[in-house]
Amino acid sequence: MMLHLDREAPLQHQIYDQLKHAILSRRIKGGTRLPSSRALADRHGVSRNTVLIVYEQLLAEGYLETRPGAGTFIGRSMPELKESGAQYPEPRSARPVRLSRYSERLSGLDVSTLNRGTGLRYSFNYGSVSAADFPADIWRRLLLREIRRRAGKPYLYENPQGLPELRAALADYLHRGRWIDARPEQILIVNGSQQAIDLALRVLVDPNSAVVVEEPCYSGARLACEAMGARLLPVPVDADGLDPALLPPVETGVRLAYVTPSHQFPTGGVMPAARRLALLDWATRAGTYILEDDYDSEYRYEGRPVEPLQALDRAGQVIYSGTVSKVLAPGLRLGYMVLPPDLVQPFLRAKQLTDRHTASLEQAVFAHLIRDGHFERHLRRTRRRNQRRRDALLAALTTAFGTEVEIAGAKAGLHLVVRFRGISATLAASVAEAAAQHSVGITAAEVRAGGDGASFVMGYAGLDEADIRQGVALLREVVQSFHRRSQRGRGGRLSKPVP
Amino acid sequence: MMLHLDREAPLQHQIYDQLKHAILSRRIKGGTRLPSSRALADRHGVSRNTVLIVYEQLLAEGYLETRPGAGTFIGRSMPELKESGAQYPEPRSARPVRLSRYSERLSGLDVSTLNRGTGLRYSFNYGSVSAADFPADIWRRLLLREIRRRAGKPYLYENPQGLPELRAALADYLHRGRWIDARPEQILIVNGSQQAIDLALRVLVDPNSAVVVEEPCYSGARLACEAMGARLLPVPVDADGLDPALLPPVETGVRLAYVTPSHQFPTGGVMPAARRLALLDWATRAGTYILEDDYDSEYRYEGRPVEPLQALDRAGQVIYSGTVSKVLAPGLRLGYMVLPPDLVQPFLRAKQLTDRHTASLEQAVFAHLIRDGHFERHLRRTRRRNQRRRDALLAALTTAFGTEVEIAGAKAGLHLVVRFRGISATLAASVAEAAAQHSVGITAAEVRAGGDGASFVMGYAGLDEADIRQGVALLREVVQSFHRRSQRGRGGRLSKPVP
Repeated sequence: MMLHLDREAPLQHQIYDQLKHAILSRRIKGGTRLPSSRALADRHGVSRNTVLIVYEQLLAEGYLETRPGAGTFIGRSMPELKESGAQYPEPRSARPVRLSRYSERLSGLDVSTLNRGTGLRYSFNYGSVSAADFPADIWRRLLLREIRRRAGKPYLYENPQGLPELRAALADYLHRGRWIDARPEQILIVNGSQQAIDLALRVLVDPNSAVVVEEPCYSGARLACEAMGARLLPVPVDADGLDPALLPPVETGVRLAYVTPSHQFPTGGVMPAARRLALLDWATRAGTYILEDDYDSEYRYEGRPVEPLQALDRAGQVIYSGTVSKVLAPGLRLGYMVLPPDLVQPFLRAKQLTDRHTASLEQAVFAHLIRDGHFERHLRRTRRRNQRRRDALLAALTTAFGTEVEIAGAKAGLHLVVRFRGISATLAASVAEAAAQHSVGITAAEVRAGGDGASFVMGYAGLDEADIRQGVALLREVVQSFHRRSQRGRGGRLSKPVP
Repeated sequence: MMLHLDREAPLQHQIYDQLKHAILSRRIKGGTRLPSSRALADRHGVSRNTVLIVYEQLLAEGYLETRPGAGTFIGRSMPELKESGAQYPEPRSARPVRLSRYSERLSGLDVSTLNRGTGLRYSFNYGSVSAADFPADIWRRLLLREIRRRAGKPYLYENPQGLPELRAALADYLHRGRWIDARPEQILIVNGSQQAIDLALRVLVDPNSAVVVEEPCYSGARLACEAMGARLLPVPVDADGLDPALLPPVETGVRLAYVTPSHQFPTGGVMPAARRLALLDWATRAGTYILEDDYDSEYRYEGRPVEPLQALDRAGQVIYSGTVSKVLAPGLRLGYMVLPPDLVQPFLRAKQLTDRHTASLEQAVFAHLIRDGHFERHLRRTRRRNQRRRDALLAALTTAFGTEVEIAGAKAGLHLVVRFRGISATLAASVAEAAAQHSVGITAAEVRAGGDGASFVMGYAGLDEADIRQGVALLREVVQSFHRRSQRGRGGRLSKPVP
């Protein structure tokens, strides 16, 4: 056995690595006697001590063994590979990977819709929020305060349900801001809405369980249901959100109904009180839990907000989910659930086995933000700003497209839906693609059948008003080129992209 | 209908709330005509404008409707409750809650072992780390740097796999520190080890799938397997960790084997190289994935560490999981997986539907910590400190208990296992309870059959050396009181708790 030593590098490490590699690769067989440390040292002109250290290390690790009076040997207990001659087993990728049914279902789904953020100059993609809106100075100050407060205290495992001070602050805030009467013991802190959805499915839904979703539905929820193997029962939405008259019969045994009543995603309808009560009534009779995803309810520009289902619920059937993704920043991964008392323990247990608890520093800072009144001041400010953005977008769309465009879902939230009447729905993806070439990010919306034209979701929270106007002006060029194509009855050339 | 108004509080809000409550509670029926705004204002001595605003709000929300020339009415579309007379449906808790099978299994499990941290003065509970060891100054400095770097940039949804800079830094660190050759594309950032376990089960395991676990096993892993409905195949461990000779036949169809080779939890054995190779060989022949939970491998006090299974794996069968819980702080909820190339997509998809991605600020700070060399300096420091703690604990135990105590698992990690020979294993829980009364936190260990005496896991990373000595001195009193009980052959009185 010959070692190849580089005199410029640490010798001990090299000898160790090469010996071990020779053993692992079966170049030297189990039971083979090694040269004595002195012989090996002499042969390679290294100090005997260096070789001794390596031998001892390999002995300690079980690669070598000594027999008194006989010397040092490659460990006999090193397993022989079954395939003779093969140095290593074949790479696994040659064999089929055996996944769980969950993972198999998931691998057939298109999760690309979850990847937001296109990096385009004029991104109307939903999910972006403005950096200028983030209360960076206050956040940094509170973060520093919290770090000082923790000085000398370890960052240990925390209460798996969430920091008690955050749950208390949220209970107060939800009472003031959302008419929700929740005790802190009903609140569970999670890593954003997606984890709320995931936990609800884990706790309440089995493969083949019936689950009501809105049609169209937020893709993060629909995908999670599909991956779980739920039997989806889509209920169409209109301008007032989900229509309870179209719910399945109460005998269906629906386990969970996922809804976005404060601003239906994506179509933007706000569910009126009567529908909310009808939905709750159905849920009571059907014995169904409702997951109310209140993802952007802080923004409502026309009229006072309607109470969330949670606040109208008298039967303990509503699981409420809120998030800071739209009011602070999605990258914080911070959300909260208000649970019916019956469900607190099941959800808490699932959360613990999922990831023990949500990271505590952000929780503490968020608690300070609420307690010190910053959060609600911040909300008033972002509400005004987003209303200005919305107004700018509405004005720009009307100016650019006049009666060619139909706008829905603008009363609340951070996005609206536009429908270009003169453009076939089948061209929506092509329009979005052409827009991207003009640095404009819009998302083709899957909206209900009926009604003509290509529909798009347009978020506006990430742009300032000037960019909104400029983005719409550029979009106008794109849309007009498609109009011309439609009028010519064949694919025409797009106008040149703006550099 | 009479309103009860408090003149000291905002009138508009009160009128709104009371009207709506009357509607919701069905005190006024759908279709009932309301007094005109002027009449209501006059009756209660408030301005008509106040009442008008309330009416408009309730109209907008669908609680009221107007009929031209006829006035304002309670909305006819308000659903009638099915039960006549009942104001609200019965509270849900009267009916059985229908949970998923996952949740049903989980509700039968004892998850209390996951709740660490007793608040005791001398807490030898495993999982605690010392506040003094946390590199608070550097962490704060890097956090501030990162916040400055992000100024004006939104905290948007990030790469779901984890920040590229962190994955690149980890790939380098794992190469230097753990002999792991991983490309950043194979790394997935998760919320600590528990999420790594959860994701592995979701991606690879179905209900009734065979899963190999160590016997005894880390409870966070065993519980997650049980909740998933896996068929557990426990393989006994000895002083060298899991014994591959006792693995089930390769035909068993085992989907996943969960192991802690660098420091078996809880017994503390370090698996020698020969066993590692035998385990890998078995996995290759059985077509089984291995989840290697390398939770505290950074600490090894005797000999050079053996390579992780991941570094020995040539067949792409090892899923590696690392965490900062033991080297920085568990409250950060930050861990990382190194995945075989085949499994990157399935795990990434599952992570996205679980919670989209791990919070990004901690990720960025951890990346800086590695990149700037702080992390490995910090590791060298905590390694020395924990070695001193371990040495202090070993010395104190030997002094206090002499040959009555048997110590195992002390070569590595942050805990060891003690066995008190003279105390029956059945008394272990009582000893832990009595110790708690003396402000000493220890955990009764579930260890393999054979070998006499009560066993306990003792973690030492959260205590300084003086506290370790004092804690052991107190523990001695407790143990001696049990010795006396055993000698008297009946339950004796405990010595009085130390105040």
